[in-house]
Amino acid sequence: MRKENTGKLRIIPLGGLEQIGMNITAFEYEDSIIVLDCGLAFPEDDMLGIDLVIPDVTYLKDHIEKVKGFVITHGHEDHIGALPYVLKDINVPIYTTKLTMGIIDNKLKEHNLLRTTKRKIVRHGQSINLGQFRIEFIKTNHSIQDASALAIYSPAGTVVHTGDFKVDYTPVFGDAIDLQRFAEIGKKGVLALMSDSTNAERKGFTQSERTVGITFDHIFAEHQNTRIIIATFASNVDRVQQIINSAYKYGRKVVVEGRSMVNIISTASELGYLNVPAKTLIDIDEMRNYPPEKMVLITTGSQGESMAALSRMAADVHRKVTIQPNDTIIFSSNPIPGNEKSVSRVINELSAKGAKVIFQEAHVSGHACQEELKLIYSLVKPKYAIPVHGEYRHLKANSEIALALGIPRENVFIIQSGDVLELTEESAKLVDKVHTGTILVDGLGVGDVGNIVLRDRQHLAEDGIIIVVLTLERGTNRLLAGPDIVSRGFVYVRESEGLMEEARHVISESLDRCLSGRRADWNRIKVAIRDTMNDFIWKKTKRRPMIIPIIMDV
Amino acid sequence: MRKENTGKLRIIPLGGLEQIGMNITAFEYEDSIIVLDCGLAFPEDDMLGIDLVIPDVTYLKDHIEKVKGFVITHGHEDHIGALPYVLKDINVPIYTTKLTMGIIDNKLKEHNLLRTTKRKIVRHGQSINLGQFRIEFIKTNHSIQDASALAIYSPAGTVVHTGDFKVDYTPVFGDAIDLQRFAEIGKKGVLALMSDSTNAERKGFTQSERTVGITFDHIFAEHQNTRIIIATFASNVDRVQQIINSAYKYGRKVVVEGRSMVNIISTASELGYLNVPAKTLIDIDEMRNYPPEKMVLITTGSQGESMAALSRMAADVHRKVTIQPNDTIIFSSNPIPGNEKSVSRVINELSAKGAKVIFQEAHVSGHACQEELKLIYSLVKPKYAIPVHGEYRHLKANSEIALALGIPRENVFIIQSGDVLELTEESAKLVDKVHTGTILVDGLGVGDVGNIVLRDRQHLAEDGIIIVVLTLERGTNRLLAGPDIVSRGFVYVRESEGLMEEARHVISESLDRCLSGRRADWNRIKVAIRDTMNDFIWKKTKRRPMIIPIIMDV
Repeated sequence: MRKENTGKLRIIPLGGLEQIGMNITAFEYEDSIIVLDCGLAFPEDDMLGIDLVIPDVTYLKDHIEKVKGFVITHGHEDHIGALPYVLKDINVPIYTTKLTMGIIDNKLKEHNLLRTTKRKIVRHGQSINLGQFRIEFIKTNHSIQDASALAIYSPAGTVVHTGDFKVDYTPVFGDAIDLQRFAEIGKKGVLALMSDSTNAERKGFTQSERTVGITFDHIFAEHQNTRIIIATFASNVDRVQQIINSAYKYGRKVVVEGRSMVNIISTASELGYLNVPAKTLIDIDEMRNYPPEKMVLITTGSQGESMAALSRMAADVHRKVTIQPNDTIIFSSNPIPGNEKSVSRVINELSAKGAKVIFQEAHVSGHACQEELKLIYSLVKPKYAIPVHGEYRHLKANSEIALALGIPRENVFIIQSGDVLELTEESAKLVDKVHTGTILVDGLGVGDVGNIVLRDRQHLAEDGIIIVVLTLERGTNRLLAGPDIVSRGFVYVRESEGLMEEARHVISESLDRCLSGRRADWNRIKVAIRDTMNDFIWKKTKRRPMIIPIIMDV
Repeated sequence: MRKENTGKLRIIPLGGLEQIGMNITAFEYEDSIIVLDCGLAFPEDDMLGIDLVIPDVTYLKDHIEKVKGFVITHGHEDHIGALPYVLKDINVPIYTTKLTMGIIDNKLKEHNLLRTTKRKIVRHGQSINLGQFRIEFIKTNHSIQDASALAIYSPAGTVVHTGDFKVDYTPVFGDAIDLQRFAEIGKKGVLALMSDSTNAERKGFTQSERTVGITFDHIFAEHQNTRIIIATFASNVDRVQQIINSAYKYGRKVVVEGRSMVNIISTASELGYLNVPAKTLIDIDEMRNYPPEKMVLITTGSQGESMAALSRMAADVHRKVTIQPNDTIIFSSNPIPGNEKSVSRVINELSAKGAKVIFQEAHVSGHACQEELKLIYSLVKPKYAIPVHGEYRHLKANSEIALALGIPRENVFIIQSGDVLELTEESAKLVDKVHTGTILVDGLGVGDVGNIVLRDRQHLAEDGIIIVVLTLERGTNRLLAGPDIVSRGFVYVRESEGLMEEARHVISESLDRCLSGRRADWNRIKVAIRDTMNDFIWKKTKRRPMIIPIIMDV
């Protein structure tokens, strides 16, 4: 343990800021560490076969005696999704708001961790004490309810972290963001502001969620003779509320479809975050009792995810819903970068069935644009600006805003995963780099797939595999059987028969040379087979399948 | 040969309209077929390891005696890229404009087909006679020069095909689209209009290419103290011309980087489509003789393609260009759907090096928006509307425009690959479906990779492979060696040692049961190994690697 960090606050992002996802940040002051959020990321295109990505929390494990708890800003996967994995090593209490905790509880139940995890619900305006820290939860707005900014009070000063936020003066449920409290804390003096960079490239002010409700009303008014199907994010409870409101107003029944959607809606209803008029929600099997123009389906699949309900309807493999030429289908979402093509594929399939598709009309973002960021900077007036949450280009755009508002360049920090930013009342500087990283989750395996395995998968994916097997006589190395050649993912078998016959010939010759030598050790034979086969296949096909020589002896 | 098609014009798309790419359409009248365009497509995400996709032209091969020639609208890959492959079977003459032919010639040279292919250059306004057809080339505007619409005159009537087009009243080079000629042909009576649907969802009018030049001038004026790097499409010669104009105006030298960019620019210069002031273009090796603020680099990589010049610069692996904190980098392009994430990755890398990135400011589309489509419909006044070029949603949007302009619903045809649309002066109807398809090109292999191979590659990519090898004694089926287990792309070897030891055990037991049976044929043994291994691995890891049992006998 370092001695020299007395009186100093250290901020250490542990999740990698390059991709959206894996939000997890350690705040350390002397003997106390608190962890803000604990998110997962979804695999990049080149992470073949991977289900999830979680952060490597070696740093927390190495300082486990200091870690006081998790403080969670809101219930999105990129902020809570790694909890069930990380809790296995870092079993400290979780502090967050009611709906957020409800969503976390569902996860803990699935992983059998509910009984062994301490959890405490915090209200907006309330503070908790964790070691040397006091943390205040401040009401914000976002595309999920019960989101919080956190004011983190330490002896070195106060840091305000916005979480994911927008400014919504007219939210659908509950209060607007607590701007007065931001101002009050700002007035007392804030060392650093860590603010959401997602939309920092966008000018203006994100529209109120309520405007989407008005759009729904218009669409419902114009489509009174067709069934309406609306795809949106499962977790956007306010969006669901507004769909239910419009449905009720226009005398339609509502069916909810898609597992994650059903889960969230039941949690939100139980906890009082969703107000459903009696007899409005019906079961999917009751749908047949109502004419199509009296139905609204709310469904998952707004990102074109291939296994989600809407994609299955579009592909004609949904068990209970068949798209009709007269359906009106609303995407109440924007494609997350990388999903554009999948979304487009679903739109094409739906259009080809004759349905009318309404895209990018009924959606607003959950993240602050430039004018909102300027507002928060101006209320909080931090000495230091630390853009968070976004790709590098977004962090940079946020830092440009800070500069434009007069924060000096040397007081703006774009920090990367593992950077240790040390703050005192007087100073801020990068002092260290700690070990961080990503852990890949594939099926039940956590961390047993890494770069070598992924490189092999990539190689297999590009060109397939050719296996060369032979049996040698023990002692004499006489060839008893083979070489046999088996390929997968290379070329059609019928196309390759001649090629493989020729390959067997070429390998046999190469083997003859090897085995006639004085000391034909297996490694030399394998290298010879691999090289011979590589050359031969490349010359004939300009491809490089993986070559696996296997030798047995009897 | 059908007798009943006397007096009938048949339009048969052969390339699949679902994805952009593979534009190829047959026009057939009695004993004559002409082929409009002959494009390739780039592989979809699930076509692992595939380099290119080309159309299956079985229909043309089966009617080779009728095929009179290719008429080509413009020089983009999705309209000419399959020519070198298709010409091997369908060796008929190619007719197109000068620059388009120059680009085709480069391809034919690479494939050693230049000597054996008849080619004829056609000027705008000129017509050619091919069998029962006369084809007139009409000047249009697009994001490559020398683009044409084609008026196809047949005894059954006239079809106008716009090719890819926009209306540019103030093009950078040459003339505006020949609207008068569209009107004149329309006045005489047009049976069908086949028009570009790419931007049919977009309102308004695509801006002139010249507006991009003005934007360049502004950016050059504001960034006089930094190096400027501009990424754009290699084939957009007008864009390159405007960059050269701005560079010349602001006293900068121009370096061109990226193989395709260098090729197109040299072809365009030779043929007189590009006007470069003396001493403006310099070699990349001369760059060191000039200060950065006197340089402009024009480069490939505007789509984030990992091997293109800009991506290599961003990743610090370009041999001759290193990104500097003071560089200004302009993406003069929009990401093609599916490339958004790659483009974003390059922007992040460039930003992280401190460069200023200008994105989506200096670009206009090459395709007509809704108002331009309305204009063409109104000049041509076709009896039938056949939207072409776009995903289904775009074709549908184009058909909505046709409907809005008063073309009756039964006269609007969205046709798919293989559909045979039969037109007479009086009628239009779908009469048949012919065989079409896609042929995958992987390395030197054309058509030797298909669905089974791709499914194997997908399987290998997701979960890797486990190979189980054993040697039996011929006749007795006594186990002489093995089972040995080899895996790739499954899990780290060190993680899997215990697992593999256990697996060997489980397989041995299953083998014992098989071999003790009366008639242990190899197929039964293989099935037993595969099932045992599948169950075991799924139970332990929740994964399904490909299992390959291999048996040898001696």
